[in-house]
Amino acid sequence: MPDEKSFHMTPDEFRRHGHAVVDWIADYHSRIESFPVLSQVKPGEIRASLPANAPTRGEPFEALLKDVERLILPGVTHWQSPNFFAYFPCNASGPGILGDLLSSGLGVQGMLWSTSPACTELETHVLDWLVRMLGLPEKFLSSNAGGGVIQDTASSAALCALLAARERATNYTSNQKGCDGRIVAYASTQTHSSLEKAAMIAGIGVSNLRLIEVDDKFAVRPEALARQIEADKRAGLVPCFVCATVGTTSSNAMDPVAEIAKICGRHNLWLHVDAAMSGTAALCPEFRHLQNGVEFADSYNFNPHKWMFTNFDCNCFWVADRKALIKTLSILPEYLRNQATESGAVIDYRDWHIQLGRRFRSLKLWFVIRHYGVEGLQHHIRRHVQLAQEFAHWVREDENFELAAPVPLNLVCFRHKGGDAANQTIMERLNRSGDLFLTHTKLNGKFTLRLCVGQTNTGARHVERAWRRIREEAEKITAP
Amino acid sequence: MPDEKSFHMTPDEFRRHGHAVVDWIADYHSRIESFPVLSQVKPGEIRASLPANAPTRGEPFEALLKDVERLILPGVTHWQSPNFFAYFPCNASGPGILGDLLSSGLGVQGMLWSTSPACTELETHVLDWLVRMLGLPEKFLSSNAGGGVIQDTASSAALCALLAARERATNYTSNQKGCDGRIVAYASTQTHSSLEKAAMIAGIGVSNLRLIEVDDKFAVRPEALARQIEADKRAGLVPCFVCATVGTTSSNAMDPVAEIAKICGRHNLWLHVDAAMSGTAALCPEFRHLQNGVEFADSYNFNPHKWMFTNFDCNCFWVADRKALIKTLSILPEYLRNQATESGAVIDYRDWHIQLGRRFRSLKLWFVIRHYGVEGLQHHIRRHVQLAQEFAHWVREDENFELAAPVPLNLVCFRHKGGDAANQTIMERLNRSGDLFLTHTKLNGKFTLRLCVGQTNTGARHVERAWRRIREEAEKITAP
Repeated sequence: MPDEKSFHMTPDEFRRHGHAVVDWIADYHSRIESFPVLSQVKPGEIRASLPANAPTRGEPFEALLKDVERLILPGVTHWQSPNFFAYFPCNASGPGILGDLLSSGLGVQGMLWSTSPACTELETHVLDWLVRMLGLPEKFLSSNAGGGVIQDTASSAALCALLAARERATNYTSNQKGCDGRIVAYASTQTHSSLEKAAMIAGIGVSNLRLIEVDDKFAVRPEALARQIEADKRAGLVPCFVCATVGTTSSNAMDPVAEIAKICGRHNLWLHVDAAMSGTAALCPEFRHLQNGVEFADSYNFNPHKWMFTNFDCNCFWVADRKALIKTLSILPEYLRNQATESGAVIDYRDWHIQLGRRFRSLKLWFVIRHYGVEGLQHHIRRHVQLAQEFAHWVREDENFELAAPVPLNLVCFRHKGGDAANQTIMERLNRSGDLFLTHTKLNGKFTLRLCVGQTNTGARHVERAWRRIREEAEKITAP
Repeated sequence: MPDEKSFHMTPDEFRRHGHAVVDWIADYHSRIESFPVLSQVKPGEIRASLPANAPTRGEPFEALLKDVERLILPGVTHWQSPNFFAYFPCNASGPGILGDLLSSGLGVQGMLWSTSPACTELETHVLDWLVRMLGLPEKFLSSNAGGGVIQDTASSAALCALLAARERATNYTSNQKGCDGRIVAYASTQTHSSLEKAAMIAGIGVSNLRLIEVDDKFAVRPEALARQIEADKRAGLVPCFVCATVGTTSSNAMDPVAEIAKICGRHNLWLHVDAAMSGTAALCPEFRHLQNGVEFADSYNFNPHKWMFTNFDCNCFWVADRKALIKTLSILPEYLRNQATESGAVIDYRDWHIQLGRRFRSLKLWFVIRHYGVEGLQHHIRRHVQLAQEFAHWVREDENFELAAPVPLNLVCFRHKGGDAANQTIMERLNRSGDLFLTHTKLNGKFTLRLCVGQTNTGARHVERAWRRIREEAEKITAP
């Protein structure tokens, strides 16, 4: 039989080009500090460099890689730079990248156990490992009534938790009949915006998401939460869900989970704990007190793709009662029926999230945990926290600056005492310089700088330089 | 300054291990036909081979790769095998895998234009390319009022379309006030189950998703759709959305988009066209007639991760009116504010989907399109269709078998004339043999085998062998 005509890359070509891409990435990480952290291009600049139409004929792979260097790189903000202190980290590592590469190479779909048993079982297993690694309650183990699943992001995890809460509170009738405008959920004014988005998506409505006031540390006031729940019940509404945050995005505030849990218990509300970045700190026993009360949570999530060296996307989401989640999200058309599912002996993860299709994401997480070991992960988390604490100390000691919020872990919220305009100018000049990348928030109505230490290779010299550059820009402003 | 203690993989280690992983993948694809296509493990078998707890100390990378071979591979169902004919394809290719590897290596977040301009601009650009490549309406171009975005899956795309429809129909009040149980959406009995899931998630409720009857080709009956909409309006309900499918999952049925569009126009309903697998066929002008009427769609999506050699996840989703989508999904907390966003000159893709975080997925799509060129893609799609048509011909010619549905493209629904039990036995024996992997559906209440030709390396000899093996198993059953 003659070979068929083919435009596919052969295994040998893949080997050659694959080595070139691996080398390119290794080189990129070696020279990453030579780039301006924040991309300096103008809107439309990248598009203007690209041809208006797709090529009719295929192009050699070398041309593609060259264009990444030439056309794409100037438009990249270097999230993996050790001088990236903006937002939250989204750190990656060699083992994470290579685990993900294997996932691409295998190219399996894990929507059902039967469509690739290893994809499901490794995920369940590694999420059970993490329960013990993070000191999470045993009820989250798959061997108990709970279990964990990898979601794409904390936004999706929060949405799934909210949906399960909505269904439980309406005795699993909202899925069938739709929402009726009486369902109410609770978060704080500092909760991540994804909760508002989840309330919109779930048909609950933003006006039925109560954003409870916070104290002077930006943590929710439990007594205000309790009062609002009672008022809503008196008004004939149906409270169903509370989101407590362990480390808010804005200032890393810690909601008092244990006190919130008591209120949830009293009113039978679903307690979701969002520890998107800060959950990783629980690898170190000395930081676990920050989430005291997590043993009462109905669901919990954190992002290894933020601060645990596992490249995006990888959100770990646990529930105490997996049946409640599955009952909320399950659909079984004929074309997905199979013996393993019918036996009830397996997990089919497509019933644990929004999507049907899913890739083999546990490989990268497994690789990261095994490469570093628990001790290796602990070492780097402790180091990041220590560096942030040192930075906070410098801010405290400097008469021109002040801390704007407590610094429980690796995020420092601070400001120059010269007012909003001064802080904004300092930030913009720093970011334009390319030397580092900082972002801001508003706390008590004031423009506040945020410095988050969490990129894989951020060390003492990067944090020291950041502080030096910040003071330099501040001096330029205050000088006459 | 002394170097800091580190457990990270250095760039040089990454280079070495990365080459090993690339080689492993190249070898895997070379020997993929030696594995049973459907994994033969029992529930729990993979987990039983894994240690109960995470390692305290890190392990050498070689041990990880060895364990993939030894522990994981037996639990893998080989979706990339040319003998994989089950479900829909989820095909990958060298350029797709390597584009995705670059995305992991860069590790950027594309939630906002400013967080990595190239991530946003390349995506917008490549999705504009695809509008022309697929003969989609010009209104989907970003230079007009529309635009495209990469979603993870067709499930998420359908959910976003349904939400935008819900908001438009309620004058953008449902997001605020929640659903009220009067919103109604329409699909067919053959529409993908993700629509039911979307109706549940969106607070609309499954009972408000009307599943309209289909004709003898499993395509929706437009007159039945029109009748139902009118009845619902008379009942005081608020119809908002219709999903038309170009190639249903069960049997690849083609809904009459043009006729449905007329009805949607009359009642001002949002028309979403789901062409998850079959949309790829529109690369070839001769197949575009299957989606006549797409020029009237409000939104459209297809999955390059199904049939266009782009590894999962990669769903392309377009809207005619991007403002409607953005208005539906937009949230702007202080910590995400930035000059580029305020200027209005850029796209911030986090307002185009459920999640906030997003990876640089357009790289792999760009690589695939440039590697193959339009002609290369067309060649392989035409070849797959041709092979499926030949298979359908053999079925038609065999007195023991019959076709169970029309075969417009690359999916053949067929059955042995011996009845449900015979077909189930044939399928189970084939799948257990490991020689190929087939799945089933039910059409007109009858157990029906599905053979879908779409894996990257599936050629004539694989389809011929599949047919031979199917007949062999059938003979064993009919023999006395």
